[in-house]
This record gives sequence, C-alpha cells and structure tokens, in this order.
Amino acid sequence: MSQANEMTGAESLVRTMIAGGVDTCFANPGTSEMHFVAALDQIPGMRCVLGLQENVVTGMADGFYRIADRPACTLLHCGPGLANGLANLHNARRAGSGMVNIVGDQATYHAPLDAPLTADIEALARTVSAWVRTSARPQDVGQDAAAAMQAARTIARNLATLILPSDSSWGRGGVVAEPLPKLRAPAIDPHAVEAAAAALRSGGPNVLILLGGRGFRAVSQRLAWRLAHASGAAILGEFVAPRVERGAGRLPLERIPYDTDAATKVLARYTDIVLVGARPPVSFFAYPDKPSRQHANDARLHILARPEQDVETALAAVVDALGVPDAAYPAGADRPQRVTGKPSPEGLARMLASVMPEGAIVSDESISFGRGLYAETHGAAPHDWLHLTGGAIGDGLPVATGAAIGAGGSRRVISLQADGSAMYSLQSLWTQARERLPVTTVLLSNRKYNILIGEYKGVGAVPGQTAMNMLDLSNPGIGWVKLAEGMGVEAVQAHSLEQCADMLEASFHLARPFLVELVI
Amino acid sequence: MSQANEMTGAESLVRTMIAGGVDTCFANPGTSEMHFVAALDQIPGMRCVLGLQENVVTGMADGFYRIADRPACTLLHCGPGLANGLANLHNARRAGSGMVNIVGDQATYHAPLDAPLTADIEALARTVSAWVRTSARPQDVGQDAAAAMQAARTIARNLATLILPSDSSWGRGGVVAEPLPKLRAPAIDPHAVEAAAAALRSGGPNVLILLGGRGFRAVSQRLAWRLAHASGAAILGEFVAPRVERGAGRLPLERIPYDTDAATKVLARYTDIVLVGARPPVSFFAYPDKPSRQHANDARLHILARPEQDVETALAAVVDALGVPDAAYPAGADRPQRVTGKPSPEGLARMLASVMPEGAIVSDESISFGRGLYAETHGAAPHDWLHLTGGAIGDGLPVATGAAIGAGGSRRVISLQADGSAMYSLQSLWTQARERLPVTTVLLSNRKYNILIGEYKGVGAVPGQTAMNMLDLSNPGIGWVKLAEGMGVEAVQAHSLEQCADMLEASFHLARPFLVELVI
Repeated sequence: MSQANEMTGAESLVRTMIAGGVDTCFANPGTSEMHFVAALDQIPGMRCVLGLQENVVTGMADGFYRIADRPACTLLHCGPGLANGLANLHNARRAGSGMVNIVGDQATYHAPLDAPLTADIEALARTVSAWVRTSARPQDVGQDAAAAMQAARTIARNLATLILPSDSSWGRGGVVAEPLPKLRAPAIDPHAVEAAAAALRSGGPNVLILLGGRGFRAVSQRLAWRLAHASGAAILGEFVAPRVERGAGRLPLERIPYDTDAATKVLARYTDIVLVGARPPVSFFAYPDKPSRQHANDARLHILARPEQDVETALAAVVDALGVPDAAYPAGADRPQRVTGKPSPEGLARMLASVMPEGAIVSDESISFGRGLYAETHGAAPHDWLHLTGGAIGDGLPVATGAAIGAGGSRRVISLQADGSAMYSLQSLWTQARERLPVTTVLLSNRKYNILIGEYKGVGAVPGQTAMNMLDLSNPGIGWVKLAEGMGVEAVQAHSLEQCADMLEASFHLARPFLVELVI
Repeated sequence: MSQANEMTGAESLVRTMIAGGVDTCFANPGTSEMHFVAALDQIPGMRCVLGLQENVVTGMADGFYRIADRPACTLLHCGPGLANGLANLHNARRAGSGMVNIVGDQATYHAPLDAPLTADIEALARTVSAWVRTSARPQDVGQDAAAAMQAARTIARNLATLILPSDSSWGRGGVVAEPLPKLRAPAIDPHAVEAAAAALRSGGPNVLILLGGRGFRAVSQRLAWRLAHASGAAILGEFVAPRVERGAGRLPLERIPYDTDAATKVLARYTDIVLVGARPPVSFFAYPDKPSRQHANDARLHILARPEQDVETALAAVVDALGVPDAAYPAGADRPQRVTGKPSPEGLARMLASVMPEGAIVSDESISFGRGLYAETHGAAPHDWLHLTGGAIGDGLPVATGAAIGAGGSRRVISLQADGSAMYSLQSLWTQARERLPVTTVLLSNRKYNILIGEYKGVGAVPGQTAMNMLDLSNPGIGWVKLAEGMGVEAVQAHSLEQCADMLEASFHLARPFLVELVI
C-alpha cells in the first residue's frame, strides 16, 4: 500500500473507537485537534456534542457514563483544555465513571520548543486518570485507543487519558485495532465473604451494611436487603453516591449525612460495618477537636468488596453463605399530593415527589438548601438520583446534560441546582438548547454561598463585611431567567411551590430544556 | 504567652502578606479556607474580590499584576479550585505575571484518609508555578508566605503557590514574618552585550532587535529605538506580549504575526536576531511540511537578555557600548476621525483609535476578527495593550477585570472580546458589576470558532456537518445583552461602527461596566 493511501493516526483512532462501541464524543477542540475533527467528519458513526468550556465537556461524559453504563470519549485541547476539565474529571473519578479523554498536544518534534500553549499534559492527566498514555507515532494510535477503551470499561478505576500529538494525528500509517477483552474485576475474597457472614450472623442490629458505588444499584440493594431482613442489620449508603436507583417499590435507602456530627451520631451504634463498594466513612473536611473517622473507635470494618470489585457477586455470595430467602421491601411512603406554599426544603422535596415522572433522572447539586431533598423523595415514582461525588462544585448542570444524552433523550432529567455552583458551568445550558435535550432545571436562587456561611459560623464568628464580600452573591443579583434565555433555554421565575409544580409539569411535555428559577 | 493568645497560622499569613505589600486578594474560598477568611475579616488591610469561578480569579490576578506591577494573592479551594484556575495561571506564567496563590487543603492528618475533595495539589501547582510549598505547621506559615512573596516579586519566573492545610491555618503558634529582600535578576553577560553591539555595528538592516516581556515597556522601546536608529536595524515584538505601552508619541512597534507563513516571511531577511526578553521565534503550532522555527535557517540568534533578566539594563549597556545618541521617534499615524459603516476589522480598529481615551487599558482577546486591531491603532491616544499570552482562551474578560482593579479604578479598560472565548469566563462580568469597575467590553459576536474554521480549511477540507457541530456557535445564538444583564452589567447591541462608537464614548463616562455586543 502506498503511503498516500494509508490512513492517518486520527482516522485509525476514530475507526478503533467506533469499532469498540464508543459512539459519543463530548468535545471542545482546538487547532492541534483539527485532523481528528476532520476524521470525525469523514467517518460516520460518532455523535459529537460541543461544550463551550471543558468542565462542561468532562461533566457531560460523567453523566453519560452514569446513565448509559458505558464510556464516551472527550476531545480536549492541549494542557489548558484538560486543566479546564479537571474538576469534573475529579468528580468523575470519585463517581467511578469511565471515559476516554483524548487530549491534543503539540507535534512531538515541536513540543521541545515550548511554544506558548505547551504544558505538561501527562502531569495534569495523572492527577485524575488511572490510565495515561501518549501516542508517539501514528502507527501506535489505534492500539493505544483500544487499550484506553479497555481501561475505561473496568470498574471504578476507569478514567483513561490518551494524549495525541498532532503529528501522530495527521501522520500516515494508522492501524485500526480490534477491541480488547474486558478486564476482570479483582476476585471477591472468600475470607471476606465468611467474615461478613459471621458478623451478620452474630451482630444483628449492631451491624451496618454500607453500600457505595455499584452498591447503589437496585440489584445490590435487593441483595443487601435480604441480608438485613434476615439478620436485623441496618443498611446505609455512603454520602458520595454516583447513581441511586430508587423511588416507589424500592428500598428507601438513607445515606450517611454530610454533617460530620450527624454522621458520627448515626454511626455510633454499629460495632461492625460491612463495606460493600464503600470506603471507610470519613468526614468531608477535618474540624478542630472533631474526629476524622465517623464510625465508633472500636468498630470493626469488614471489606466485603472494594469499589473496583463486583459488589453484586460479593453480596450474592454472602446471601448464599447465610442461606437467606428473598424478602419484600417494607411498604414505603406514599407519593405526596399537590403541595403548595412558600418554598421550604421539605416542601420542595414533597412537591418534587408529587410531580416527578416515572423513569426520571435527578441530577442533584442543590447543596445546602437541598440537603434534605433526597431523604424526602423516597415515595416518588421510580427514578435515578445522581449526586455530586467529588465535592468539586460545578458538576450538576453538565452531569444533567450528559445524562440526558446517555438516556438517548427518552427520559426526563430534573436538574436540582444551587445558584453558586450553577455559575461554575452555566455554559451547559447552551448545549442543552443546541441538542434539544429534555432537561428541566430547578435553579435554587438563594443569592449566597450558604454552605460556607454555615461553615464560617462553625469557626465561631459572625461574618463581617470582608467575609461577606466573599460569601454573598446578592450584589448584583444573578438573573437566571436572562442567563438561560441568553443561552437559548426558555426560563421563568417561580416564588411558590404550586407555581413551580405547574411549570415543572408543563416542561415535562417539552422536547427541549426548560429552567425554573425558584426564589428561596 | 499562653497558647490561647497566640495567633493562628491564618492570622500570621494575613499579617505577613499585608506587611509585605500584598493588599489585594482575588478569591473563591471553600470550607477548608474559612479560618483564612475569618482572619481576612478581622485584620484590616486586604481588599477581597470575589470571582464566581476560579479561572476568573487567577485571570484577575494576572491583569492586576500587568498594570500594577506588583503581585496580588489568590485564594483557591483545594485541588479542584486550583484546577479550575490553571488555564489562566498558564497564561499568567507566559505573561511573566507574579502572584501568590493560596490553596487551601485538607488538614495534614486528614489528607491520608482521602476524603472526596482530596487531590494532589502539589502536582497540579507544579505544572505552572516556579515556587511551590506546603505549610506543614502553623509556625511555618508566616515565613512561607514571606518566601512566596519574594518569589512573586522576581522577574518572569514568579508564580508562587502556597498550599495551606486547614490545621496549619487554624492552629496556634503563627509568627508574622518580615518581608524578604527582593531577589536580584541574573546579571547581564558582558559578552552578550558585546555580541549584540558587534551584530548591530556590522549587520545594519539585516539585524532584528526582538523585544519580549519587559521589552514591551516604553523605556525599553526607547532604548531599542536608539539602537535601531543608529544602526539601521529593525525592531519587532514577539507575538506574545503581556503589556505594550503604545499610542501617539510612542514607537509604532509591530509584532511577529500569528500566522506562521506570514511570520516566516517577515523574519526571512534577518541574518542576526538580538533577543531582548524574547525567546527564539517558533510557531504556535506545528503544521505538516512547515518549519517550527520561524527565523531563517542560518540566522544567528544573540541572547542579550532572557525573559527573567533586566532588559532595560541590557539595552542600556548596548547603547553605551555603541555610544548612540537619543533619537526622536518617527512621526506616527494621526488619530483617525469619526469612522462609520459596517463593522470590518480595519474599520473597527480605526474606530477604536478614534475614541480611545488617553490612559486606556486594552485587554485583547479578539482572536481571529481582531488580529489586525493592534496594528491599526498605533495612532490612538497613549494606552496599554494587554494580549492573550499563553493561548489558553478565556483570559480576556478576567484580565480586563483585574487590570481595572490594578489601576485603582482610575483608567478606562476596553475589553476586546471574541464570543467563543468570552463564554469561557463570562462570570467575570458579575465581578465587574459588583466592584463597579470602569470596564467597557466590545463583544465581537461572529457566532463561530472562526479561528478553527480557518485551521480546519488548512487541513485541506471543507467542514461538513459533524465538524461544524464542533465549530459553529449559531445554534442557538448567544444573546450577549441578556447574559450581561443577567450578571448586572448594562448592555446594548450595535450593528454599525458609528453606533458602537457612540456607545463606547458614552460608556467612558460611567463609573461602572458596560458591554456592547457588536454583531460582525
């Protein structure tokens, strides 16, 4: 074959990805990625979705994975493009969301000249990625892409970053690689199964089954419930929950509270904690004179399955060891009727439970006002609830956007969004409008970093003018209706729960996004 | 002194910074920084300016330094907060802008527990910082802050990042540190002075004096002009120009073009290039079959002063060696009269030159449409022009905001801003409104990533639907008037140069920001 007929590295990349089942690319390209963009243009099979800032791009890929259960790819421009997307990669890493990040770079021979956009992409990528590789030659790109997809399909440790120098992209000699076999998760340790079974057998109500990661899925919850029902043990979820399958007819699964005093109190009674895809419970932050670990000092921790192991297999093994029968869930809360009045956290939760359609996806970055929304919505129609996992604010709107794409447009997404964190990645609304995505945003406008005002008071002082200059968002007020409209999303303001409910229900019939600014 | 009377690490940090002349803090704090916020609240002397996303915060600090010629500090929340601000730290590094980044972190004893927000802050910081240190004890914070300020006051290699674990912040035993002496720049090599003098003596019009960094300031330009006038040599600036002092009565200094074919053509004739705070000219990106280095293959490069050396001293030494007299600048272009008609790059440049007030500061992230604005505005009233230095888009609005603060509100800032890059850090407008800053933004709305469409055509193809999905911004159109108003900035749309001129002139009398969306 003559060289001119050989495919470029970029073409081999696109063909390898499509052959491997990666068919969605969240993108914000730049000059060094133009040959890859050209390959995407010429080879059918990849849906390309533009985000106007890279944290939107990476957050969309996170939301996509959480709903579709398979990786998308991202396309990012050089070190600064990756840097802009790192915060939501941090959240995606904590969520265990797989993706293949393709980061364009200077040509291999150009990089040593340190042109202005040159940066240490590998160093940046390693802070979040489980797998990092730079494709040094066009001939390597296909096999590197196959390895990246393999990494992105493992459980939990699955953020892969493939760095693509522009000469590896435009150069000829590219070879399409076959998909590599899925890597097996580390096997469940039979001794861990025995230890968990023994604790459940003897501990009864002093045992806690703590679910995390894939443990939040319905199948795992059901297995955990069988264990709890037979043994008298309790079940809780970690505070960090990437995707909870829940609602009417499912387990009303509570999570460890964010507030570390409350968490310590909840956990104090347990002598044994069986960790199922969960990590030992620690506080989000340290505080003077408070413990870092939230469980009792003398509690025994039993690691049944680490986050990167198969939690369903682990739970099923304990079910078998104990020989416990299936058990029905207790009757749950009824779906609330029409809720009216001024917005309160409890009222909003009940209103949401009353209107939420079956199969809805909730993206929750409601922060302080929304801390109780989860607990009060067990009675809603069956739905998925996606939480902020890594504490880096600015993932709610992008995750909602990517989740809508991950569901193929067939499910309504409800994006519960605090105003301070919404300002981090408001550009997401533009992508929602462009792609006509069925996302309804409830923008909780309290015009302050309320969580920080609470934390500040914990320091033991009332914030003065200088502190409030850094905590207050009311000067000037942020006009969310105008911001949404400026990005092509229809929006209205609501001041009562009945107004908000009417607008939500109307929006659920729209084949496009909608935003309600709820003044709280 | 009893322990309860000792100051906290946070208090020692604030007092050390204020004593060292750092009096401005661009901030987006989080939980782990609350004790630092409390110290800022209780100790007078630091102006705190909130940005609603960290790339706004770091970009403001860059703009502040470029105009005030002294460092501010930033306050960032953990690894993700730093990550969000890295792109504009990359630009600041390329601009040679000093600052002290204070990044809050988990308590030292809490970090090993890997709570959700935990990240490798040092690894992230090292990708952009010349100086990185973690204060491991409250006793160390003051001296570490003094060292950070010393680093931030050197020339060019002056990005300092101080990582502040929360127990070093709240713990007692803090000690205020005296300011450390300013570090001397590496001395100018007398042999380099001789070599530059010899080249100028013998080379005449085949010699280029290439200015970069501090070489763009008026004093350096004047010294370079004396050399050029006496020897017949040419003067150019690097493409990357952090701050150019220019306008009527000053040198009409041209820069090396961005386009690498044009740059190669401009540089082809020079046998000798004297680098004065500039780096050897290389293209922004590599292209197939084009050279990476833009100068002639056989050109001799003479490094008179590296970016981190004192360029004025170096130029003065060559002036002395050659004994050249002072020389007046050639008569420059006249200030254009009123300009009318449809917006064109040339028309916009002439209109700007006609209305720009003396002492204006221009923040230029006008990208493709604005590539000629610089060259056509030599005749404007004396002003400073700030360029995007690192190629990471999203610095124009934050740099404009920080520059206004760096000038103490006494100078009008004109922010020339392309729409695609504006969407990266539009939150800047909110800070402009909150601080009532005299910034007029000209938002050049072309509704596409036009620079990339040009680059795509360079690949040799016309973009199809998939490519345009990643390059076009018109679906939906971005409503800049609504976006600005949503963040408290008055805004209007203009379709002609005379409309735009009238609005600009009116805005120059306002003690607050204003935005003109110029539809191009």
